[in-house]
Parts: sequence; C-alpha cells; structure tokens
Amino acid sequence: MAKFIFSNIIGSFVFDENYKLVDGLLFKDISSYNDKKEHEKKLIQKHENLSIPEEKDLYNILLFFQNKKYFSQFYKKNLEITKSSVKESVNNDGLIIQTINSIEETDKTINLLAKRLREWYSLYNPEISSKIDDHEKFVSAIRKKSKSQLLKELNINENDSMGANLKEKDVSAILLLATQINNFYKLKKHYEDYLKELEKETCPNFATVGGITIAAKLISHAGSLKRLTEMPASTIQILGAEKALFRHMRNKRRNLPPKFGMIHEHQLILKSKEEMHGKAARALADKLSIAVKIDYFKGKFIGDKLKKGLVDKFKIQY
Amino acid sequence: MAKFIFSNIIGSFVFDENYKLVDGLLFKDISSYNDKKEHEKKLIQKHENLSIPEEKDLYNILLFFQNKKYFSQFYKKNLEITKSSVKESVNNDGLIIQTINSIEETDKTINLLAKRLREWYSLYNPEISSKIDDHEKFVSAIRKKSKSQLLKELNINENDSMGANLKEKDVSAILLLATQINNFYKLKKHYEDYLKELEKETCPNFATVGGITIAAKLISHAGSLKRLTEMPASTIQILGAEKALFRHMRNKRRNLPPKFGMIHEHQLILKSKEEMHGKAARALADKLSIAVKIDYFKGKFIGDKLKKGLVDKFKIQY
Repeated sequence: MAKFIFSNIIGSFVFDENYKLVDGLLFKDISSYNDKKEHEKKLIQKHENLSIPEEKDLYNILLFFQNKKYFSQFYKKNLEITKSSVKESVNNDGLIIQTINSIEETDKTINLLAKRLREWYSLYNPEISSKIDDHEKFVSAIRKKSKSQLLKELNINENDSMGANLKEKDVSAILLLATQINNFYKLKKHYEDYLKELEKETCPNFATVGGITIAAKLISHAGSLKRLTEMPASTIQILGAEKALFRHMRNKRRNLPPKFGMIHEHQLILKSKEEMHGKAARALADKLSIAVKIDYFKGKFIGDKLKKGLVDKFKIQY
Repeated sequence: MAKFIFSNIIGSFVFDENYKLVDGLLFKDISSYNDKKEHEKKLIQKHENLSIPEEKDLYNILLFFQNKKYFSQFYKKNLEITKSSVKESVNNDGLIIQTINSIEETDKTINLLAKRLREWYSLYNPEISSKIDDHEKFVSAIRKKSKSQLLKELNINENDSMGANLKEKDVSAILLLATQINNFYKLKKHYEDYLKELEKETCPNFATVGGITIAAKLISHAGSLKRLTEMPASTIQILGAEKALFRHMRNKRRNLPPKFGMIHEHQLILKSKEEMHGKAARALADKLSIAVKIDYFKGKFIGDKLKKGLVDKFKIQY
C-alpha cells in the first residue's frame, strides 16, 4: 500500500494509493512555510513508507486540489508569501541605493541654491562672491561675518563697496537661504557617514577597492549587489558609459569604445597618466568584480589585499 | 569780457574768453556731484556774467581737459560714480526678483527631494505613500506618526504590511530628509511673506491687481518695474509666452497667437470659461499696465478700485 507525501503553499498532505487524502498539516504562517522540511518531517514520523509522487501520481494529486474549495486558501497564502518576499527583498542594497541617490540630489540642490545665494548676496556685497570660489566656504563666511568684517579682510573700504545698504530684514532673508544651504552640507556629511556604515556591513571588499561613493554608484546603476556579481569585469568597467558604448557599436570607425564609466572618478584613474587609463580601468574592474562576488557570497575580508595589489602595480596611493 | 561756466565729473570751472582757466571748484564727493546745480551756484555768485559755452567755445574748453594731468582724476571720479550708481541701482525690484526666483527654486527642490523621500520611505512603509498625495501632508505625517500608528489609521494590520522592518538608524536617516523638506516648506512660507511686504512698499497697485506671485514673476521676467512701465498692455499680456508668439510669427496660419503668458495662472483666467480667456487676459493686462505706472511714479493707491473693476466685469472673485 503506497502512500504519497505532497506539499504546496497551503501545507503538507498524505495521500493513499487511490489519491484520497489521508492526513494533512497546514502551514500556520510564513515561517512554517519557509521551514517546509521540518513541517513534512512530522507527517513522515507519523506515517510509514511515505514516498514522493512520480509524474502519474502527481497528476492525480494535483487534480485533487482543483476543487474550488481550496481556491480562497491558495489565494490567501499566495498573497501572504508575495508580501513577505517583497518585505524580505529590502536589504542594505536598497538602502545604499536610496542613500547615494539622496547624496547626489543633495549636491544638485546645494549647487542650485548656492548660485541663487551668490546672486542675491551680491546685491548687498558684490566684492565677496568672486573672492571665495568654494560654495561651502562662501556660505560659511557670510553666515559668520558681517559685511564690514568681510570687506575689512579684503582691504576694501566699506564706502568703496558697490553693494547696496540693505535693511536688516532684507539681509536676514538672504541669510536664511545661507542657513538652509549649510544644513544641506550637514545632511550630506551625515549621509556619507551612513553610507560608509551600510557598505561596511554589506560590501566591505567592494567598498575598499572602489571607494564608498563609486561602490554605491555602481550598485545603484546595476540595481543590486547580486546583479553586479553576474556581470563580467568588462561590463563593470564601462558601467555608466552606455551611451558611448552604443555610439561605438553603431559606428566603430568614428567612435572609440569607452575606457570606463562610473569608475572614471576613481583615484587610480584620475591620478594615472592618460596612456595608462585603459590599463588601470581594466585592472580596477577586475578587482571590483572579485570583491563584489566575495561580498555577495559572504566571503572573508580581503579588500585591503586587493587594493594593495592595485596600489603596488600602478604606484598610486588611494 | 565773456566768461564761461563748465562742469564735468571732476568739478565746475570758469574760463575766460581765451579759454584759460580762471577759477574752479572740484566735487569733493559723490553727493556734491549729485548736487551739481548747488555747486555751480557758488561760482556763479563769485563771478559776474557767466554764460554757458556754445558749440565753438565748448570745443576749446574740452581741448583744455585733454591734458594728461586730468586723466587720473577722470578715471578716479568715473569709477566712483559708476560704483555709486551700481549701489543705487539696487532697490526693491532687485530684491523682489531674487525672492521670487528663490521661491521657484525652493519649489523645485521640494519636488525633487519629496519624490526621493517617498521612494526611500516606501522600502519601510509602502502602504502610506499612495494614500497621501500631497507632499507637504506626507512629510508631516511620517514625521509625526510612527509606522504602526499610520498603518492603524489605514486599518492595515502591521504584519500585512509589505514594508521591511528597518533598524532605527535606517529609519532616522530617512526622517532626516523629511525634516529638511519640512524646513523648506517653512522657508518658502517665510519668503512668501517677505515678498508680500516688499511688494506692499514697491508696487501695491500692481500686486493688488495681479496677485503677489504673478506680480513678482512679471517684474522678474521684464527685469524691473521701470521696464514694465515702458511696455504696452499687450506685451504684459503675453509676457512669458515668447516661444508661442514667435511660433505664431513664423507660421501664422498654423499657430494662433498666444492669449497670455505669465498671467495664465491668475484667478481671473483660471476661473473664467475658455471662450472668455482672451477677453479676461486683455482686461487684466490693461489694468496691470495702469497699476504698474502708478506704482513706478509713486501715485496713489487705487489697486482695490482697479481690481473691483475686473471683479465686477467678469463676476469672478479673487
């Protein structure tokens, strides 16, 4: 007398040789569904000689579940499982992607607002803007020092200034914008620290070889750490240079293939001579490709060794 | 014996009939230059029968000043006067333009960051974003209420949520962005109040007829209040619709002329029926053109009367 054991998303079931239901044990929740083997064991201990149905038997067992009374149970369980996998799919990758995108948008915002601030403040004190090129220093200078202080530092007589004598409320409207921009610089720094922490947990090797920002940009561009592991090193090398690549593919004679994509901001490329760019990009992409696989499969930390290999080979410190 | 009086940017001078310098009085500073008439009076009282040089005399007097020893004085004075006029040229117009541009950039920033916030927060609590369309309400909701509170309000069981269970530091990174966006809403409101004040001082009539925002946009687009006074009403009507206007001028048959530019957001247009749009825009532009002239030439406040005329004519309250 053959007996079959069969599991689907509702639970585990025992059928006799006539495909009649003998026993069954429903999954109470997602975790018991995830622990299917343990669940089946209970039935196996209770019944003797249970076997896994072969194709012909399986067909008949599946017919059994075509009964409409199971439909609502299937629907409910399906929804539960889907929701749970959506929930589980959020991991540090997703947070890294959101964080690097926020940093990039913070940068854009700072640029936009700093230009506005310079124009606005120049009505009041035009001599300063051209003297301080760096936005962050400019914002900090006008927040901390008065017009006369700033002019004095530049050895400009206050009466010689072309700036208008604005009322206090007009000046404070301008300084409100400066305060906002300053807050954005703080926010950016906070996110950079947070990103570093996330990467330390998720992809220490990848981040060590590629650097915090470039690592995050590559993950964001690929969509996930997993997808990066599936890419050959040559793809990682030109990730972000898709336009140039397709331009090359359309017209090979006129357009050279791109040497690098996102990784062009890496110190190894920036600091190497132009004729070495291709070589450096290839070597970097190779190490990145190794690093990302180690991280994804929870291997040991060898990021420092990978990095040292590059540093020694190209005599470039980063 | 003829004597001539002649003034340039250095000072006022008296010449005899042989065009020899007899007397002179230099401008000590900008304010004495601006008070040229008073300055000349002192020389006129001292000398008798001073006359203004005619063309032939003027030619000889100008030759006198071609002497190189005056060059550095001309240069110095010129610089002084230019600086001073740059300084004087800053008035409320300029501040209005900077403020409305800041408001528009604040809007852009809020939009950019709010979209990022929604995406990021959805990893944690995806059910909320679609329920609250308004960015400001969304930001305020997630800042003030916890995930479980928000889900409870939507009658969603917390275990049914598809959002991941993020760590506290991950959630607080998201909420930092929300706080920044909230600060921007505050900043925007502050600038709107400030703009209202500026316009009350500078262009009360124009602002009453056109509304605070549209008035500011028109000033910004024209470049100054003065330039607006020099425009016919029909130009004010289509200010900001230059593209459509030129499209019309290139191909009159295919492209109708634009009915309105910046003023399309005005309540009078928004609330009137489409077939009345052209009429309403024309009437509004007429009143705006009157209002801006009154403001520029410091006339009385009749903005409420101008507005009432429009309200009564089109039976639209604004």
